[in-house]
Amino acid sequence: MEIFIEPIGRLINEFSKLPGVGKKTAQRYAYKIIDMSEADARAFADAVIGVKRKVKYCKVCGNFTEEETCAVCRTRDNSVICVVKEPKDVAAIEKLHEFKGVYHVLHGVIDPLAGIGPNDIRIRELLARLQTGKVKEVIVATNPDVSGDATAMYIAKLIKPLDIPVTRLAHGIPIGSEIEYTDDVTLSRAFVERNRI
Amino acid sequence: MEIFIEPIGRLINEFSKLPGVGKKTAQRYAYKIIDMSEADARAFADAVIGVKRKVKYCKVCGNFTEEETCAVCRTRDNSVICVVKEPKDVAAIEKLHEFKGVYHVLHGVIDPLAGIGPNDIRIRELLARLQTGKVKEVIVATNPDVSGDATAMYIAKLIKPLDIPVTRLAHGIPIGSEIEYTDDVTLSRAFVERNRI
Repeated sequence: MEIFIEPIGRLINEFSKLPGVGKKTAQRYAYKIIDMSEADARAFADAVIGVKRKVKYCKVCGNFTEEETCAVCRTRDNSVICVVKEPKDVAAIEKLHEFKGVYHVLHGVIDPLAGIGPNDIRIRELLARLQTGKVKEVIVATNPDVSGDATAMYIAKLIKPLDIPVTRLAHGIPIGSEIEYTDDVTLSRAFVERNRI
Repeated sequence: MEIFIEPIGRLINEFSKLPGVGKKTAQRYAYKIIDMSEADARAFADAVIGVKRKVKYCKVCGNFTEEETCAVCRTRDNSVICVVKEPKDVAAIEKLHEFKGVYHVLHGVIDPLAGIGPNDIRIRELLARLQTGKVKEVIVATNPDVSGDATAMYIAKLIKPLDIPVTRLAHGIPIGSEIEYTDDVTLSRAFVERNRI
């Protein structure tokens, strides 16, 4: 005899597909749904469907939007472009409320081992945006790992002939952490990128 | 400007309603849904709706079922009844594959502070099941806390005149743990419930 009847087993299975969710956590989530009112469960399901139906990618920057172009592209200073790997990186930067420019979402990074080359991510679209002559800086904010670094270097090389400054986010010791506990790679990067005080 | 567009913000909000899920985790879940195919997201939403539409309570024991009565009540030895607080306790016990009897789900425990009395949980239904004269043992498996204990005592007292043995799950030191780290209450219960070797 199955421990869970079919509809519950199915829901547990669906919740298990979420990142970091094991059987036990999926069970807790499923019990929560069972305890919800019919209307609340309906709202939950509608939100899942809604996100797939309504969320598109901005024609300009590639970020999430419900319109043709996103609110950032429509309203902000488009002379500074911040290049990121994924839409979730945009959310992380927007949370700071500091960057006033626009974004360019690559939807991936160059990763030869995974068979992802420059033509598989939105680099061509980035170059097209630079042809207007209005862009004064490109900030590359890819992750500080092998493929993130490679992508940043590749983009910098491509843009060089256009004479637009390309910058990268600083790497170093996280604020609030301790030198003793900083990993070796970060610590040596902090030496390389040291600043005059 | 909102960091998340409306459909994404709504989904994050829905995921935040799940137990132990904060904003950050809810975001990760929402991104996962966005990355899913339309069909997969639909299957997810259908599972949420399905559980509310198909899951009912067994007319006999109060456990989850899709039919009038659950598979356990239909097929198993109904001379031993295990009394639990919630359907999730049934799942925990079923996982052992050891108990061969049937269940009775109280859907709560007596908790005067929360205004829950004996008539608010399925105690009357339990007594009705005992009138057949076929029940040889009632095992009370409520949680070892104040209201779980009170409920167990109350049920034992009610059943006493029927001359059916009422037992309770043993309390004591969990297997694999150490006496040094066992909490005081558990340790003193282990003394009280000590067995001859």
